Amino acid sequence: MPDTQHTMDASADMNDLRMSEAARPLYDHVRKFIKETVNPMSEEFHRLGEGKTDIWSYAPGQLECLEKAKDEAKKQGLWNFFLPDAETGEGLSNLDYAYIAAELGKNPMASESMNCSAPDTGNMEVLERVGTPAQKEMWLKPLLEGKIRSAFAMTEPGLPSSDAKNVSMTAVLEGDEWVLNGEKFYISGAGDPRCKIMITMVKTSPNAEPNKQQSQILVPLPHPGVTIVGPMHVFGDPDAPHGHMHLRFENVRVPKDNMLLGEGRGFEISQLRLGPGRIHHCMRSIGQAERALDLMCVRGMTRTAFGKPLVKLGGNTEIISRARIEIEAMRMMVLKAAKAMDVLGNREARVWISMVKAMVPERVCQIIDQAIQMHGAAGVSQWTPLAQMYTSQRTLRLADGPDEVHHMVVGRAELAKYTGEEEDPALAAVWRK
Amino acid sequence: MPDTQHTMDASADMNDLRMSEAARPLYDHVRKFIKETVNPMSEEFHRLGEGKTDIWSYAPGQLECLEKAKDEAKKQGLWNFFLPDAETGEGLSNLDYAYIAAELGKNPMASESMNCSAPDTGNMEVLERVGTPAQKEMWLKPLLEGKIRSAFAMTEPGLPSSDAKNVSMTAVLEGDEWVLNGEKFYISGAGDPRCKIMITMVKTSPNAEPNKQQSQILVPLPHPGVTIVGPMHVFGDPDAPHGHMHLRFENVRVPKDNMLLGEGRGFEISQLRLGPGRIHHCMRSIGQAERALDLMCVRGMTRTAFGKPLVKLGGNTEIISRARIEIEAMRMMVLKAAKAMDVLGNREARVWISMVKAMVPERVCQIIDQAIQMHGAAGVSQWTPLAQMYTSQRTLRLADGPDEVHHMVVGRAELAKYTGEEEDPALAAVWRK
Amino acid sequence: MPDTQHTMDASADMNDLRMSEAARPLYDHVRKFIKETVNPMSEEFHRLGEGKTDIWSYAPGQLECLEKAKDEAKKQGLWNFFLPDAETGEGLSNLDYAYIAAELGKNPMASESMNCSAPDTGNMEVLERVGTPAQKEMWLKPLLEGKIRSAFAMTEPGLPSSDAKNVSMTAVLEGDEWVLNGEKFYISGAGDPRCKIMITMVKTSPNAEPNKQQSQILVPLPHPGVTIVGPMHVFGDPDAPHGHMHLRFENVRVPKDNMLLGEGRGFEISQLRLGPGRIHHCMRSIGQAERALDLMCVRGMTRTAFGKPLVKLGGNTEIISRARIEIEAMRMMVLKAAKAMDVLGNREARVWISMVKAMVPERVCQIIDQAIQMHGAAGVSQWTPLAQMYTSQRTLRLADGPDEVHHMVVGRAELAKYTGEEEDPALAAVWRK
Amino acid sequence: MPDTQHTMDASADMNDLRMSEAARPLYDHVRKFIKETVNPMSEEFHRLGEGKTDIWSYAPGQLECLEKAKDEAKKQGLWNFFLPDAETGEGLSNLDYAYIAAELGKNPMASESMNCSAPDTGNMEVLERVGTPAQKEMWLKPLLEGKIRSAFAMTEPGLPSSDAKNVSMTAVLEGDEWVLNGEKFYISGAGDPRCKIMITMVKTSPNAEPNKQQSQILVPLPHPGVTIVGPMHVFGDPDAPHGHMHLRFENVRVPKDNMLLGEGRGFEISQLRLGPGRIHHCMRSIGQAERALDLMCVRGMTRTAFGKPLVKLGGNTEIISRARIEIEAMRMMVLKAAKAMDVLGNREARVWISMVKAMVPERVCQIIDQAIQMHGAAGVSQWTPLAQMYTSQRTLRLADGPDEVHHMVVGRAELAKYTGEEEDPALAAVWRK
Repeated sequence: MPDTQHTMDASADMNDLRMSEAARPLYDHVRKFIKETVNPMSEEFHRLGEGKTDIWSYAPGQLECLEKAKDEAKKQGLWNFFLPDAETGEGLSNLDYAYIAAELGKNPMASESMNCSAPDTGNMEVLERVGTPAQKEMWLKPLLEGKIRSAFAMTEPGLPSSDAKNVSMTAVLEGDEWVLNGEKFYISGAGDPRCKIMITMVKTSPNAEPNKQQSQILVPLPHPGVTIVGPMHVFGDPDAPHGHMHLRFENVRVPKDNMLLGEGRGFEISQLRLGPGRIHHCMRSIGQAERALDLMCVRGMTRTAFGKPLVKLGGNTEIISRARIEIEAMRMMVLKAAKAMDVLGNREARVWISMVKAMVPERVCQIIDQAIQMHGAAGVSQWTPLAQMYTSQRTLRLADGPDEVHHMVVGRAELAKYTGEEEDPALAAVWRK
Repeated sequence: MPDTQHTMDASADMNDLRMSEAARPLYDHVRKFIKETVNPMSEEFHRLGEGKTDIWSYAPGQLECLEKAKDEAKKQGLWNFFLPDAETGEGLSNLDYAYIAAELGKNPMASESMNCSAPDTGNMEVLERVGTPAQKEMWLKPLLEGKIRSAFAMTEPGLPSSDAKNVSMTAVLEGDEWVLNGEKFYISGAGDPRCKIMITMVKTSPNAEPNKQQSQILVPLPHPGVTIVGPMHVFGDPDAPHGHMHLRFENVRVPKDNMLLGEGRGFEISQLRLGPGRIHHCMRSIGQAERALDLMCVRGMTRTAFGKPLVKLGGNTEIISRARIEIEAMRMMVLKAAKAMDVLGNREARVWISMVKAMVPERVCQIIDQAIQMHGAAGVSQWTPLAQMYTSQRTLRLADGPDEVHHMVVGRAELAKYTGEEEDPALAAVWRK
Repeated sequence: MPDTQHTMDASADMNDLRMSEAARPLYDHVRKFIKETVNPMSEEFHRLGEGKTDIWSYAPGQLECLEKAKDEAKKQGLWNFFLPDAETGEGLSNLDYAYIAAELGKNPMASESMNCSAPDTGNMEVLERVGTPAQKEMWLKPLLEGKIRSAFAMTEPGLPSSDAKNVSMTAVLEGDEWVLNGEKFYISGAGDPRCKIMITMVKTSPNAEPNKQQSQILVPLPHPGVTIVGPMHVFGDPDAPHGHMHLRFENVRVPKDNMLLGEGRGFEISQLRLGPGRIHHCMRSIGQAERALDLMCVRGMTRTAFGKPLVKLGGNTEIISRARIEIEAMRMMVLKAAKAMDVLGNREARVWISMVKAMVPERVCQIIDQAIQMHGAAGVSQWTPLAQMYTSQRTLRLADGPDEVHHMVVGRAELAKYTGEEEDPALAAVWRK
Repeated sequence: MPDTQHTMDASADMNDLRMSEAARPLYDHVRKFIKETVNPMSEEFHRLGEGKTDIWSYAPGQLECLEKAKDEAKKQGLWNFFLPDAETGEGLSNLDYAYIAAELGKNPMASESMNCSAPDTGNMEVLERVGTPAQKEMWLKPLLEGKIRSAFAMTEPGLPSSDAKNVSMTAVLEGDEWVLNGEKFYISGAGDPRCKIMITMVKTSPNAEPNKQQSQILVPLPHPGVTIVGPMHVFGDPDAPHGHMHLRFENVRVPKDNMLLGEGRGFEISQLRLGPGRIHHCMRSIGQAERALDLMCVRGMTRTAFGKPLVKLGGNTEIISRARIEIEAMRMMVLKAAKAMDVLGNREARVWISMVKAMVPERVCQIIDQAIQMHGAAGVSQWTPLAQMYTSQRTLRLADGPDEVHHMVVGRAELAKYTGEEEDPALAAVWRK
């Protein structure tokens, strides 16, 4: 057995998965805020949206209702705490954030209420680290204040997004402007009327070495050259008005200064966001699984068939037991991956992140699916949040590298303990995106 | 080992699963018609619907396009062949129909094109067998001609549909009219503007013995007392304009003569439809699984990642192999259950039907899910039919008795071989609905 | 979707899975004989063996007890009926034999009682088809009479048996004798003191083309040059006195005339045995699964815990239901593969055989495992036949090509429908062994 | 969602899963000792046993070989460290011991080499806590010195061991002696010629309340009244000479002073051992899983088929990835359960222990099974340790409460968060045994 095993088993710090003392008050505060402010607000928000005819706008009162919660969060100091090691944020470690994100996962509106929702989080992080003062003033500031929303345009139709070299959208410098042409899809949030800025991955230097060909450029929205071809449905649901949009770029002209960091540095920027992004998703997935289990238990105790509550029929108690066991196992794995990022850095922690990314959404899907089954026909309807939770977690198994690619990362890392081989460059690229 | 085992293993006729010689020309004809007429028509139909704003109506040209295919089907004699042993139909056995239904399952518009789509099929069968001459003239005739569509209202919110005694909607005779009050949901097809008649399960005789309390009454649509509360979504999709509607009945008055067969005979009528209905669904599910496997293979051979077609990566070839094996196993089971219905009758074949109902949709869901995974993000979108196929098959695991109830039927029948015990009456009721 | 699909779905004869009228009396007779003669005999046989000290011999009375059952079988005409299309046999089709083999699978001593047990069956078939009159007189005759037993030596330590080119044992002609050197392992039956002849796969022509290098030679046992290195254990069980032996051949000299068919024709001979051999195993596996389900039901109804019979606790009824469903599905698949061999021939039926080989032992293992779980600690002990049934079915997943190889055959055949590609020669070789 | 959830998610100490600084040198020392002393010794031990004829004794040299390792362990201070909080031990917390036990699990002879093997560990703990000075002198001392071995007799044939009230063996006081009559089975270690003492659970007070009827009595071995009926096989393997014996007690007379703690206090004593015993098994299971994965990787990289190493074929890399992920998840869960015992006490930690007991052996079985599959036929033989590892882990799913009972504990605890209900007394009894 290779000796490297040793390190993984028992290294001193990796297994201290406690929340820091400093973060606990924030954690408790967030829980309280979700319970007292977000939960009632989200019910009101959905009630207001019921009669809506144009699915791509907000109903009267909806945004006000949300803004009120955001103001309250700001007032209570529950704002932008996702930002790591930053003056603007709380300086939470990934581990601390993991605890809080699991709570955020229990209500889909919790993140936005405290200005901690994707893709804004990643965009703000990028702008803060690599933005020019002018870019920060123009885009970061309103984002940090929750005044606008944003999008991140990477995935393209027809190209496997798991291979990072696959960017075909071009940007050519003409005079003082970059001119962008191409298509992107699954651009989440680009349907929201409040979405005003989009970080866009383009190919600027086709003759450079493979990981120096890409750049990231800021495209303000709406833009005359950017057409919404349509929303990508997720299991038939356009997820309006947020939307996962299919966009066409035709001679989209933006000022030269909208380039982030510099030509050919697109990959470099991506490295900042992908590790944490993946782990944030999985953290929230734990919260989703908790909620599914909660709904499953309540339904199972209150619904009767053949004269008994459902939990007393067939294998239902065992289903609940297995869900609890798997949630606890997943929680520990997410905490450990977060700790690995804190201790080892994003790159060294990548196998832990891939483990979690390959493990969590798949199992959470199963738990939600079992909760649906316990609800009968109502389980697939809009009368419970389960169907939407399912499609969101199912999609997560395909986003940011499908399960299979993460299993390749983990499996090859295991074998590399014996051979000491360099990682496959194509797989490594999954992490450079 | 109980001797009853013997019969199941080797009874003479049960294992002759050949299509009859008489049915083969029809089978071949249907295949040809789907390929040459239905497939191009359904593409045209979807294209026409793309710009539609009111999701609850048809776009200009859509119905004409469909009607043209229906006319062609009628002209070619491919019409109403679902009707068993009837002058109007082809007199197909369940076994013969199983072969054809698997083909119908490959295109969701195939059934309607040949006037063989649910819930019209069940409604037409019921009307033909128990309708009065006047009822037949008024409703069966236009249904057989494909001029109108219909719905069947059984399931109610708040009551487990797996227990057949659970009907709370009332119908009270006032003078020459039945007056209906209550709620129904998941009423498929009730959103279609062409839906003109609905067979409605009501409680008319609360003091009779449990299975004599129910009746079935014809309710014409639209009706001033029937309000569409809203569509039940299926994983966020309202499935418009067909729809699975939530309906409120407030003092809905229909003529006394709209009663089917007679007061208190609602269960009796249901027995006519449920066995075949369940098996028809499973037959079409085989077609769905074939289509998912087809899409999986094509995608796997044409999409490349890391320099190879997907089918050469990881366990994908084994996934394809397992799908093929399971499809063949399911096909044989569906054929056997159909044969059991032909040989033993619906009631005696009920364990076979439950076996198939518990087995097929669950596994077909898995196969479609794997096809989705092979497609990446496009797999959950509207760019392939997979997401819709998934939600439809997933819902089938809850409709007409959830998997768990059918496993109870099968498990208890197995144990009853040893004890000779009577079947649990509550479970038997699943079959009386 | 490729048109070849059509054939598989609905070809006329393939789905007539009835036992022939001619075979039914034999089938009924075999069932009666197992119940009345084999079952009591096998209990007596095991009782006699209980005090045994030398595990590699039979206890006094054991063989007499078995011989008496064999005499009875011979007297009743239940003898050698495995032989297909032969004067000596019953001329059973593979389909008819499948029904009977499922019965044989329910008691491990049933096959030998009627002289239908592996590897004798394959050896007798080979000798009958390709043996010289002298070879038949010397070895086939006593085998057909049940006077001796035999072995088949193919697998070698250190070489993957799934690749048929992997034979390293040499046989060199010196004068009138072949001289064999090398090692074989997992030689089933070579531990039995009654085993007198072994068909041995050797490499005689290393310079010929790959599938002409091998020959099969008859080696009488015991032989001074053949050393039993030891028994291969199966999960710790040496399976004495039958044994799966590891043998060393050192200058083993046999007459030139012991060659079967001719030099370089070893593969050709193997083609005769592998298809049917694989399917016979799977047929018996169905019987094993039936027995496991029977034991599971009886245990579940008679054992109580927490005041209830086990079948009323947790998911046990569903486990029983799933087992019944899977057994029926597997049965139909085995019958279909047998039919395919009858209709299409062994070679054309190979994908069906691989489907069954990949499907059946894996699932039967799961069913037996669940029966073990229902029995508690007794389930892994010698107090039930379950543990032995498990290890035997588990081993079957590795024998005659591991599951993975058969899934490759099936998966590639599916893809070949689209490409029309020739089969991979290496995989084809799996079938030439 | 019930607020109790909170505690489980984020309690301050429960997630500090670091090994203590004090334990690390011992941990490192144990690893070194296994590598340098135990591994070579166990190879020698098995070599010496190869020619053995009497399986129920040790071959010449075997015990000397083992004793030499034990002496070395004693000399190096690696002795009896399992004892918690005791002068004689190292005072390891359960958490610290968990790390070490995972190492012990990698070689089945490691535990005994350092006098930390079951059932001696449990017996020594019990004797130390409740033994009289005379009992300690007579039995604890030689056990602590590794001079003798011991057994624990609880399970009886015909009674479900998961229900703790099921003890039928009687002990009646006649004068100065207890007289025991009855049967026990699965008495591990009772076949070992060195086994000199057996703690025996008996019913002494049939009229007392259910959990006061039992007592534990010391029975010296060999004893004229104790007959070894035979060994219980585990998948055909008698596991000689250790053995899992079936024993008959006929008028077994032992001195009155052999009673432990006092009449009617048998359950009370059991509480001391069951929690830790279950968790120790699971700790070692992690080591077994690590070893299985190690064997799987080595085999997969060195064995080729179809021209490639096995790890590059089919889904094998994903199988390795999933095994790694599940091992890490299980490891964290075992560490957490151990920590729960340290922080909350055995009784309060019981749900965590049940979670681990229900989760770990089942998954470790799957991982070992996959390692077997990767080895082909050799995987089930004595040529690798995998088959024995499998049967041992498979048996663990039935020992100390089968999986199903632990899932009931976990599932009901989950539901009790909502109802605040008292635990089912029958389930609670699982923990009193």
